[in-house]
Amino acid sequence: MEIDNNYTKNRQEMIEKEYLTRIGGELVLTQTEEKVNQILMAAKGKEINDSFYNGVPFPPQLHFFKAKPAMENSTVFQFIKKMPKGGALHLHDCSMTDLRWLVKNATYMNSCYMCYDQDKKINFHFFRSPPEQPGCQWHPVSFYRNQSTNISAFDDMLYQSMSLEVTDPHTSYPTLDAVWKKFEEVLIRANGLINYAPVFAAYYYEALKEFMEDNVQYLEVRALLPEVYDLDGKTYMPVQVMEIYRNTTVKFVQDNPSFTGAKVIKSNIRFKTPAIIKSDIIASAEMMSQFPDHFAGYDLVGQEDPGKPLLYYLDALLYPSSHKPPINLPYFFHAGETDWEGTSTDYNLIDAILLNTTRIGHGYALPKHSEAMKMVKKQQIAVEVNPISNQVLKLVDDLRNHPAAILFEQGFPVVISADDPAVWGAKGLSYDFYEAFMGLAGKDADLKLLKQLAMNSLMYSAMSTKEKVQALDLWSTKWQTFINSTLEEYVRNNNLKTGLVFTHKLQDEIVGRK
Amino acid sequence: MEIDNNYTKNRQEMIEKEYLTRIGGELVLTQTEEKVNQILMAAKGKEINDSFYNGVPFPPQLHFFKAKPAMENSTVFQFIKKMPKGGALHLHDCSMTDLRWLVKNATYMNSCYMCYDQDKKINFHFFRSPPEQPGCQWHPVSFYRNQSTNISAFDDMLYQSMSLEVTDPHTSYPTLDAVWKKFEEVLIRANGLINYAPVFAAYYYEALKEFMEDNVQYLEVRALLPEVYDLDGKTYMPVQVMEIYRNTTVKFVQDNPSFTGAKVIKSNIRFKTPAIIKSDIIASAEMMSQFPDHFAGYDLVGQEDPGKPLLYYLDALLYPSSHKPPINLPYFFHAGETDWEGTSTDYNLIDAILLNTTRIGHGYALPKHSEAMKMVKKQQIAVEVNPISNQVLKLVDDLRNHPAAILFEQGFPVVISADDPAVWGAKGLSYDFYEAFMGLAGKDADLKLLKQLAMNSLMYSAMSTKEKVQALDLWSTKWQTFINSTLEEYVRNNNLKTGLVFTHKLQDEIVGRK
Repeated sequence: MEIDNNYTKNRQEMIEKEYLTRIGGELVLTQTEEKVNQILMAAKGKEINDSFYNGVPFPPQLHFFKAKPAMENSTVFQFIKKMPKGGALHLHDCSMTDLRWLVKNATYMNSCYMCYDQDKKINFHFFRSPPEQPGCQWHPVSFYRNQSTNISAFDDMLYQSMSLEVTDPHTSYPTLDAVWKKFEEVLIRANGLINYAPVFAAYYYEALKEFMEDNVQYLEVRALLPEVYDLDGKTYMPVQVMEIYRNTTVKFVQDNPSFTGAKVIKSNIRFKTPAIIKSDIIASAEMMSQFPDHFAGYDLVGQEDPGKPLLYYLDALLYPSSHKPPINLPYFFHAGETDWEGTSTDYNLIDAILLNTTRIGHGYALPKHSEAMKMVKKQQIAVEVNPISNQVLKLVDDLRNHPAAILFEQGFPVVISADDPAVWGAKGLSYDFYEAFMGLAGKDADLKLLKQLAMNSLMYSAMSTKEKVQALDLWSTKWQTFINSTLEEYVRNNNLKTGLVFTHKLQDEIVGRK
Repeated sequence: MEIDNNYTKNRQEMIEKEYLTRIGGELVLTQTEEKVNQILMAAKGKEINDSFYNGVPFPPQLHFFKAKPAMENSTVFQFIKKMPKGGALHLHDCSMTDLRWLVKNATYMNSCYMCYDQDKKINFHFFRSPPEQPGCQWHPVSFYRNQSTNISAFDDMLYQSMSLEVTDPHTSYPTLDAVWKKFEEVLIRANGLINYAPVFAAYYYEALKEFMEDNVQYLEVRALLPEVYDLDGKTYMPVQVMEIYRNTTVKFVQDNPSFTGAKVIKSNIRFKTPAIIKSDIIASAEMMSQFPDHFAGYDLVGQEDPGKPLLYYLDALLYPSSHKPPINLPYFFHAGETDWEGTSTDYNLIDAILLNTTRIGHGYALPKHSEAMKMVKKQQIAVEVNPISNQVLKLVDDLRNHPAAILFEQGFPVVISADDPAVWGAKGLSYDFYEAFMGLAGKDADLKLLKQLAMNSLMYSAMSTKEKVQALDLWSTKWQTFINSTLEEYVRNNNLKTGLVFTHKLQDEIVGRK
């Protein structure tokens, strides 16, 4: 029937037109990549069909704490784990590394002490000999550990004390403020371990290692550069803490030449006075020239809704650009991490853009701003999307409703990151990549999306052009290896001469669900 | 400081540019409307600030069952209730009228019987004398009512048996499929009462009355035109059921000259065979000419994910346009009522547009389709957004994450409707308008949005141009009265000479939350 043919042709054209506008839509895959794409899409199709047709719980729809075991069993997740994912551009200093590592290492050190404060909450600190402290009496962690009947249960308890993980997150964290309160509490507790100089460097080294093991080759870290201390009573000032970051990064890259490196984005808390922020900005600009290869710029962090808006710090934030001559300090502002349209938090998006931010942290509210959308696209301001963070910190439940789905659809400069993976029991980037690929993107989003996201994470990094070329070159080699080995493994496991055992279809059959 | 002034100017321009692109953004308010807008925005600002700053639970964030009492106490809700809202364009025949009316009227009729089936579930039917029916023994409702010790509790039980309302919806309805199963069950139960001819007409008359009392002047009803029966054994065929709709509408408008009227959109279930749909389309096209003032077009309804996609019925759906000469049967397709991007349900959006749909029912997935977005805007295909329905039927929890927020932002042709208000204990349009105004739109969306939504509901209706002119004229008079009386009441209550006691600011102060 002629009309039907016409109809089908128009329909296919429209679908393909939409496909082209998406992130990665314009990439052209090699023949080998195409075969690997078919392997990937068979797995993805199966996992989605299991849920769509047969009601198997769909991980991106569930809270991460409940979804994690199913994710880890997923073929798509295993694929993503092995995939070279480029860089992780949105991470925070004190929540990058597996908390089990922190328990197994930091709390087993002889000088590690803990006490129970008046709220019966654990505090950690390192001492040669602890001070008398009424209301929180210090004992070596080993003292408590030896008292416990079950060391493994004791260590689990320490882990839990620094984690947001619970059995029933909806009951434990009824509101966004409630989860943020607990979030800040566990971060402060972990800092009792992390900010001890010997742990500090080792913790950061371990972070680099874990991300490398997750096939991430580059990090950018929002770092408070806090006061780090040692047993000799020495307190490390921000510049000295920055030196620890630089030296540890250099050492790690020496140890692992296939790792690109890392940079620090100095951050301060968005509850400080404008005067403090201004002097911090001046100090940061100095570090920018002092650590040209390892210091990337500046940001304000902390819960955005109750925090001060960017506008509150306008004078300080305009200081570098209005200085004569202008001072170089790129911004990487958290902005629009909110469900509250039309509030001060929401308008941080506008200010981040007008303050010439290099990237936007979260930008959760961005699709609700038509003009900001245009400018972000035109000026290629990358949006750092952290799906699991937004879910755990209660901006959205079902990740298929994450607004960045719109950014995916319209081909925005997006990078996927993990924010504070340790606190919710994630590791590296793979969990967030899985949520992005399965939940934020549709059933027919394929290897092109994943490839583009990986490339974006290097292209929109704070690296110099020269560094980017090297990083992309390195990534490209890893990618080729990954593509070839994935196909080889598939052919081997399936006793095939070719990986092409089926043809992926861009759209569903017309049979409906049952 | 010069730079700051420039900055502030640029910022304001950007915010105003965004504001202009929104639904209603280009409307110019009269001086009196401007004053009423300030009254409205003071109330809205207070309600949002109570939540944003002080953590008062925010109704659009909560499940409707939990939010309803707070909504009813809201000043904004009371404002919206009184506001002339135009038409309700997305409603279903058997869930428009308060179930308490159904209990108080239908179940008190002498010929109303009920039985408990093998699953101990209630069935209703009307008989002169009931048949013997093993497994479900019919008794007059009055028999059970008289046996009960508490008539009010008994009537409540009947109400509950036809409602989705529960104390803890997240536990009662863990999945979308679970809530749809219950939804279909309660609708079928209510149909046992509604499809009895004397109830059928009265139920529909009551629907018109309830919407009129909610200051809605026009309805379009998705109607299955089911088999309606009476005690004489007569079964009314679809055309005769359509006559009931027409006659009741005509009678209602005679009784209430300030009401515009209503039209029927014939609907069938998206699980039927293509042959059945084709003959239904042919029959519908005939009714289209038989009832030119009361029959508007055609749709397919029922849970969309498991249902057949539009493509499955392509041949039938293309029949009217491919007929020579073409047959007039406008479509009003439900499409994209899903979280599942890239599936058959999701692609219904593409087909609805290519099949030349006049409006889209729900279009929940629309913002995930860039090409479809363009066409919907260009061809002015109105999107019927039903916020509470989408929440209760589990597409989204927090209504601030409803994707239609994007359509609001980008000035799409949107109408707000109520879908099946009776089943979740809503009434009229006000509850959905409140959710749209407070949840889908931002803090600074104002009277212009509400006014545009009201006008959209008439402009994008299935009325003829002549009918639209009359309807808008009527609405305009109601609107003037509403604006004037709102201002007068405010001035009176506040002992003022003018309503202008404060100045609404387009954006937040820069103080942050606390």
